[in-house]
Amino acid sequence: MTRNIESGMATNRVESLTDGVYAIAMTILILNLRVPAVPGHPRALLRALAGLQLQFFDFFISFFLLAIFWIIHHRQFHYFARADNNLLWINLFSLAFVVLIPFTTSLNGEYRNMTLSAVIFELNIAALGLLKYIQWTYATSNHRLVDPSLSQEVIENGKKLNLVNPLVAFLAIGVAFVAPNYSTMTFMLIPIIVGRLKKQNLKSV
Amino acid sequence: MTRNIESGMATNRVESLTDGVYAIAMTILILNLRVPAVPGHPRALLRALAGLQLQFFDFFISFFLLAIFWIIHHRQFHYFARADNNLLWINLFSLAFVVLIPFTTSLNGEYRNMTLSAVIFELNIAALGLLKYIQWTYATSNHRLVDPSLSQEVIENGKKLNLVNPLVAFLAIGVAFVAPNYSTMTFMLIPIIVGRLKKQNLKSV
Amino acid sequence: MTRNIESGMATNRVESLTDGVYAIAMTILILNLRVPAVPGHPRALLRALAGLQLQFFDFFISFFLLAIFWIIHHRQFHYFARADNNLLWINLFSLAFVVLIPFTTSLNGEYRNMTLSAVIFELNIAALGLLKYIQWTYATSNHRLVDPSLSQEVIENGKKLNLVNPLVAFLAIGVAFVAPNYSTMTFMLIPIIVGRLKKQNLKSV
Amino acid sequence: MTRNIESGMATNRVESLTDGVYAIAMTILILNLRVPAVPGHPRALLRALAGLQLQFFDFFISFFLLAIFWIIHHRQFHYFARADNNLLWINLFSLAFVVLIPFTTSLNGEYRNMTLSAVIFELNIAALGLLKYIQWTYATSNHRLVDPSLSQEVIENGKKLNLVNPLVAFLAIGVAFVAPNYSTMTFMLIPIIVGRLKKQNLKSV
Repeated sequence: MTRNIESGMATNRVESLTDGVYAIAMTILILNLRVPAVPGHPRALLRALAGLQLQFFDFFISFFLLAIFWIIHHRQFHYFARADNNLLWINLFSLAFVVLIPFTTSLNGEYRNMTLSAVIFELNIAALGLLKYIQWTYATSNHRLVDPSLSQEVIENGKKLNLVNPLVAFLAIGVAFVAPNYSTMTFMLIPIIVGRLKKQNLKSV
Repeated sequence: MTRNIESGMATNRVESLTDGVYAIAMTILILNLRVPAVPGHPRALLRALAGLQLQFFDFFISFFLLAIFWIIHHRQFHYFARADNNLLWINLFSLAFVVLIPFTTSLNGEYRNMTLSAVIFELNIAALGLLKYIQWTYATSNHRLVDPSLSQEVIENGKKLNLVNPLVAFLAIGVAFVAPNYSTMTFMLIPIIVGRLKKQNLKSV
Repeated sequence: MTRNIESGMATNRVESLTDGVYAIAMTILILNLRVPAVPGHPRALLRALAGLQLQFFDFFISFFLLAIFWIIHHRQFHYFARADNNLLWINLFSLAFVVLIPFTTSLNGEYRNMTLSAVIFELNIAALGLLKYIQWTYATSNHRLVDPSLSQEVIENGKKLNLVNPLVAFLAIGVAFVAPNYSTMTFMLIPIIVGRLKKQNLKSV
Repeated sequence: MTRNIESGMATNRVESLTDGVYAIAMTILILNLRVPAVPGHPRALLRALAGLQLQFFDFFISFFLLAIFWIIHHRQFHYFARADNNLLWINLFSLAFVVLIPFTTSLNGEYRNMTLSAVIFELNIAALGLLKYIQWTYATSNHRLVDPSLSQEVIENGKKLNLVNPLVAFLAIGVAFVAPNYSTMTFMLIPIIVGRLKKQNLKSV
């Protein structure tokens, strides 16, 4: 019995840790939203909550970006027949950037109107997106970790779809130099672009 | 091998993320309960803790509302034979409202006696309840995601039961305009109404 | 197809939420331990950390009490052949008391030397222990949720073992009236008593 | 039916709690990184973030040390055919030290340039590493909890690999007496040493 150490890590264990980290990161985003401390009459509270509207918007953007990356993770692992040590570490690196998102979201919320804080948040998303692109490319090149019968078309479509997030993140960085306060709205392009790509019969990853 | 992207998401993966988000949201509710800082003699502490009694009540209400929605989630998924992209996003939207609950609970606790804060909490519950109603209606209409043998009776009873939570939430909003401090107590009607509905032989979802 | 709503909840789903809540409660205990703020020379830090020693002790006590209840939970569910609605709610109630433990641990840590805060913590443990006793008694009476072949001996031994935690908690409450600062040490009796009970050939639950 | 209490704990339940605790500890590390409060112009923020660079480094070190221990945990459990009570408690003790890591990381970050705080963090890692070594030695001695066919070579290689982490931690403690600010960098030796050991055909655990 000489089971190799690499082959020893089943994909389902990796998924269990990954689901946990995503679920916690998505939930602790709410800790960035602080209940405002204002005099106790309704108009003051309403004004304070209205002042938080961009923070709420950022909460939803980060929540749904994490949700999108979680979906990407699971769609990729759905095709992976096995895991190796490199895949494990690509995944752990991307989890480190998942964990950073509550911090960079909060940073961007505290320093509104500033290009620097918006760019840091968007670089975080870009890094996560690129790692998911690298993960797919690594696993599918020469059918390294996927079923040999997986069609080249599915592989190529997967690459295109995995480029959407980092490219939109770089576009958002560009917007941040012009209108930092609104640059995170750029991410609303993602569902539109993905929808269009799918219409063109790209149904994979 | 052209597995479709939609069919790629097994229901059990969605459930794993969902269980994680519910478990964390239910647990971080406790972070809203701050240990009071009072002079170190028992009477002062007892008075301070007594002053927290409504906060404790709200903690339990939010904890058990989340528990009820978690049960509803699993009872629905128990009937779902498969997931599609729309179901995935309805579920992710409802998770965003799950994550908001620790915030709206805390807001309601900080601004007692105020209609506005109570209404915000209750709108959060109403949104979550409506999304669960939409989820069930979407999945069962034309037996879209459920077994073709699922009886129309089970489907209709499921709709009725899923309307209980949003309707009670709207009732609580009404109460909030009269007695904001006690409006969350309205949610104690839920087990009574559900119990009655079940007695009338509504045994599903 | 008229699957009953009660039978719809498989025990493995309950366990998934339960594992999540226990894991989070055990981990956020650490948030009670605050890094001391003292002048930056080693002797001051050492003194500050030494001053935290009872807090560290309480962290470990709460961590291992939660671990013990988690083990009890799983040993009970190991015997349960099915879940019903009552079991589900007994379990959810006990989860509410699990979630309270980081709060009552912190309260006890902040108000050292005070009977009141120690008693509150110990009542929390007693409530959790009693709920586990009730859970076992409910599920095994008339073999309601367990295999009909489960011996009466295993059932009785399970009851005895499940009484250890609440009884030790009540003993700790007694100690709290005499020496509140040290009353949580009473819980160190649990492994000793459980060890003795097992030696007497009580090998179940 | 007299199922023994020890045999009652399947390894998969232990893994579920363990995955949860690791995922949460890895994610709440980010709560140590506080968004700096500086005047709202970019240069001040950039300087403040640059001042956090060692905190970021420590975040990544702790994140990846936890990732390494999580991998070790799963590689060990991959070989374990069953769990007993002792294994359960060795694992729970190591989880207590996992939960302490966000605290000791934060302590080390707050008291930079101090040998004491660095040593405390490194003792935490050493304790975790030694517990993993003990866990492997306990489970494999006389093939207590592993398949009888597991080769002695795999067992011995496992021991060597499990000694790497505590030995590097002790080396870091030595460095802390000379250059406390940089002692955590010692942990970057781990991938280098493990890589070398594997090249020498040590492919196990």
